[in-house]
Amino acid sequence: MKRLLTILALAVTVFTAGAQVKEDFVTAPNVQTGKEYPKVNSERRVRVRINAPEAQSVKLDICNAVYDLRKEADGFWVGESAPLDEGFHYYQIIIDGAYVPDPSSLYYYGVARWSSGVDVPAHDEDFYALKNVPQGEVREIYYWSPTNNAMRHCYVYLPAEYDKNPTKRYPVLYLQHGGGEDETGWSVQGKTAQIIDNLLAEGKCVPMIIVMENGSWRIEGQQAPGQRQGGGMSLPSDWFQGFANTLTKDLIPMIDARYRTIPDNAHRAMAGLSMGGMETKEIGLRYPEVFSSLGIFSGGEISPEEAASFKGFKENSKLIFVSYGSRELNGGRDIQANAEKMRSAGYNAHTYVSPNTAHEWQSWRRALYNFAQLLFK
Amino acid sequence: MKRLLTILALAVTVFTAGAQVKEDFVTAPNVQTGKEYPKVNSERRVRVRINAPEAQSVKLDICNAVYDLRKEADGFWVGESAPLDEGFHYYQIIIDGAYVPDPSSLYYYGVARWSSGVDVPAHDEDFYALKNVPQGEVREIYYWSPTNNAMRHCYVYLPAEYDKNPTKRYPVLYLQHGGGEDETGWSVQGKTAQIIDNLLAEGKCVPMIIVMENGSWRIEGQQAPGQRQGGGMSLPSDWFQGFANTLTKDLIPMIDARYRTIPDNAHRAMAGLSMGGMETKEIGLRYPEVFSSLGIFSGGEISPEEAASFKGFKENSKLIFVSYGSRELNGGRDIQANAEKMRSAGYNAHTYVSPNTAHEWQSWRRALYNFAQLLFK
Repeated sequence: MKRLLTILALAVTVFTAGAQVKEDFVTAPNVQTGKEYPKVNSERRVRVRINAPEAQSVKLDICNAVYDLRKEADGFWVGESAPLDEGFHYYQIIIDGAYVPDPSSLYYYGVARWSSGVDVPAHDEDFYALKNVPQGEVREIYYWSPTNNAMRHCYVYLPAEYDKNPTKRYPVLYLQHGGGEDETGWSVQGKTAQIIDNLLAEGKCVPMIIVMENGSWRIEGQQAPGQRQGGGMSLPSDWFQGFANTLTKDLIPMIDARYRTIPDNAHRAMAGLSMGGMETKEIGLRYPEVFSSLGIFSGGEISPEEAASFKGFKENSKLIFVSYGSRELNGGRDIQANAEKMRSAGYNAHTYVSPNTAHEWQSWRRALYNFAQLLFK
Repeated sequence: MKRLLTILALAVTVFTAGAQVKEDFVTAPNVQTGKEYPKVNSERRVRVRINAPEAQSVKLDICNAVYDLRKEADGFWVGESAPLDEGFHYYQIIIDGAYVPDPSSLYYYGVARWSSGVDVPAHDEDFYALKNVPQGEVREIYYWSPTNNAMRHCYVYLPAEYDKNPTKRYPVLYLQHGGGEDETGWSVQGKTAQIIDNLLAEGKCVPMIIVMENGSWRIEGQQAPGQRQGGGMSLPSDWFQGFANTLTKDLIPMIDARYRTIPDNAHRAMAGLSMGGMETKEIGLRYPEVFSSLGIFSGGEISPEEAASFKGFKENSKLIFVSYGSRELNGGRDIQANAEKMRSAGYNAHTYVSPNTAHEWQSWRRALYNFAQLLFK
């Protein structure tokens, strides 16, 4: 009888939380070894379960909403989100007012902290799945940066064939994370190696080197812009210059010296998401002798008027790719219309809109997948 | 007056906690970008500070002791440990009974979870400091393992000169983590790349490739042994065989095919800490045609009688290195005496005891530093 009442009470709790939850949860790929939660169900709800026997309140904070968890008899708190978009989402747990990572999830650097994260299965997740195809390598590099008078840290993806072709040289993509993220973002959350390995296995992109550095910068007390949109940030006109200096004076010469690159602008691209997209635009317009192909993911676009105002840009430009998640375009931005104007002005302009995703990693995984197929061709 | 009372109350709290704490704390290297805590003082105490405004109890769990934190007026809880040994320590925060990582520290995989960690400055920390010397690379590799019918994951350290000498071949060290840790341990907590880069810059070791794979294994329901000592675990006689199969049938052939190794036992070593040391002993004794040099860090030793009982071991053995932290030897184990017997029996046996450290990473950083200088010479 007591058990029946418990089941009824639980059912009522779930119901009063505003939704009937489908009980087909499976463990997400983002759990620590041997752990069971977080889980995701077919409605794309995320469920967490936290051991906090003496807590008064435990909550789940995910995708800009906070959900109360329910205390169970064994001291664990359990609960789930509303249905979420496909793809990767950062989340945190709130235990009696303390924001902490979920102790059973893997951790990812985002929102300016090492945060929990969970992957909601996506209809197209095959393109970033780990498969038994020839595997490239992600190399961790420390290097001396004279511009900063410090050691710096980056990751470099090299295609599987690199070590097998000791005289072949490769084009290079410099790929930047968003605000509040760091140089780990693209290879971990972004699945860069899996996306490119899979594309190469299908013959859909050119073998390339991809360099992932930390583009967070502070100039004259001005922190790099945050990841979230619409904050109305007023940036100094040269906020990107610190990273531009590091990139052009230290990072690119180091990469060109260390790897078999094709060290000219025709074979060098820059792309990034959000803040990294803004950096791509600002740096790409000003350094046409360095970069000829640009990918701006959820980070703005380039108008024909802007492009024309930067000396040497048009003559050197080979590719301009602009993408957004569809949920970011509710404000009325029309990237296709701008791209049409760019094409009329003589640019090789492309766009991509990620269906049913917001300012999140699934938009950017898809952006890289589409951008890479156009690059260096 | 109120402020004075607060200061007095704080002083009393610190005093009643059993110790006068020296107020010369500095931020530890293990903080997240922009964060201030954890800190360490000159007494080698670790101080944490946690925002948990509605919590009833917040504690620090470090080095097998739990410390109550004090609530401050702003909702933060603060407190410090007793003086700790030099080097790296895992820790957790307990918020109203919930064990969670410190939200402002970096995270490390150990004790079978992604855990907070803190480095207490060590008198000899220069040997693992990041310096502007030629930098090797740590490469992240996924590879297909037929033995496991699965993709597996490892890290490979390559010395800075590797890409500059396209025909030179290198010896290989297979380096294993402890129980409850994984393939990230040696390059992150262990500082493998920094230790070897610094040794190479001083001409104190031979350029080598170092492979770091996951040696955690489960055989017939038997989990790999835990990291903590003295648990009186009874292991099946072949608990190491799962990893031995993966190592000899899949990992070593992949490494020998992918990199310019010297693919013979004279130029192949295995070493590990704790469980990884036990694996090194068990596998090293049984596969003399694969490995000729062994490093057993806090994981046992090999007696002349054991060594003699394995066919082919003595003829192939080039180096046997055994190390412990000094605090692990209180039980009376005498590794020098055993090494003397091994040398009398014709083995090239070496030992190292890390001063004033326990079953922790500082013992193993120092072990690698000493072992590497003897290896492949």
